[in-house]
Amino acid sequence: MERVSGAALRQKILDEAIGLVYGEGVDHITMRALGERLGYSPATIYLYFRNKGELLTEIARHGFEKMAERSLPLMADPDARAALRGSIVAYIDFALENPALYKLMFEALPPARQNESRFPKARELYDRRIEVFRRGAEQGVFRDVDSDIQFAVYWSIMHGFAMLSSTDRMPPPDSTRSVRQLRELVADEVITALAPD
Amino acid sequence: MERVSGAALRQKILDEAIGLVYGEGVDHITMRALGERLGYSPATIYLYFRNKGELLTEIARHGFEKMAERSLPLMADPDARAALRGSIVAYIDFALENPALYKLMFEALPPARQNESRFPKARELYDRRIEVFRRGAEQGVFRDVDSDIQFAVYWSIMHGFAMLSSTDRMPPPDSTRSVRQLRELVADEVITALAPD
Repeated sequence: MERVSGAALRQKILDEAIGLVYGEGVDHITMRALGERLGYSPATIYLYFRNKGELLTEIARHGFEKMAERSLPLMADPDARAALRGSIVAYIDFALENPALYKLMFEALPPARQNESRFPKARELYDRRIEVFRRGAEQGVFRDVDSDIQFAVYWSIMHGFAMLSSTDRMPPPDSTRSVRQLRELVADEVITALAPD
Repeated sequence: MERVSGAALRQKILDEAIGLVYGEGVDHITMRALGERLGYSPATIYLYFRNKGELLTEIARHGFEKMAERSLPLMADPDARAALRGSIVAYIDFALENPALYKLMFEALPPARQNESRFPKARELYDRRIEVFRRGAEQGVFRDVDSDIQFAVYWSIMHGFAMLSSTDRMPPPDSTRSVRQLRELVADEVITALAPD
């Protein structure tokens, strides 16, 4: 098989698998189902992806690229408060709009840090987030908090809010707000909570 | 079948199912597997639990009772900061020590608010958490934040931290801290972030 068409075929299989994740979720992906949809034997699929794990890793890589495409420009805002606020809202929206992809990236697969060469965008997102906190401290708009703790709090809020919303646990009992309203208010509260004394 | 022994048998089935959740997780519970372990036919199990959903609901109820037993005394601390700090740490520990039970309560089943009569302890936990915020504002140790937003931020932190830790995503990349150290520091940061100007 010629090299170029091999790469093209690999991409075609990957695109089909990504489409399946968006449409039906990760559970529906099998090498056999993919082959059937594309008209290839499972053996052909295995020529391009050693196993389902490798295929899922590539789908997650696509997810980190998509997330980075959306979040990195927001985090580049010179105003650290705007950068943080925008990136919180964008993160939650990404998770809610792409629930199966998000769960694959942040729950089903091992952490991206165990596979940094496959997920360079995950590392870049992490580095840029830490950078936003540092910039905010320099600008005097954020308290100077240890970056581990800062990141742990901030990531927990984004992940927790997204997961609790996706199973209809947010907004909390008795709230009259929508999830969309509440995520804006949560982002505002994070900014307020980081204000220096 | 005599009424008392019926209740005892129902409890015996439930205890076995709870033990299965602790030991092997929710996925391993089937009416047939339960029957086999107890030496009853599946039909006997169905006499006491209409379906697997009803059984899982009862297991979750046990979970909320267990969580309440641990958290409510901490939240009764007259010092609102100590009450909040203790309840954050206890929540995360409950989730990390009982991962399958926690996922059943907060992910797999519909939200407790859709089934308040079955989960009175879930409601009580929610009410006491809101009460801690109110007390802290009265004591002048917390900013006076809208309770929806307060609860959304605080629950997201606890849930997010627990879920990210349970898949080895916490502590974040480059951190030298353990999950146990970090959860203490996260609780401290929540208290600091709530301090009035």
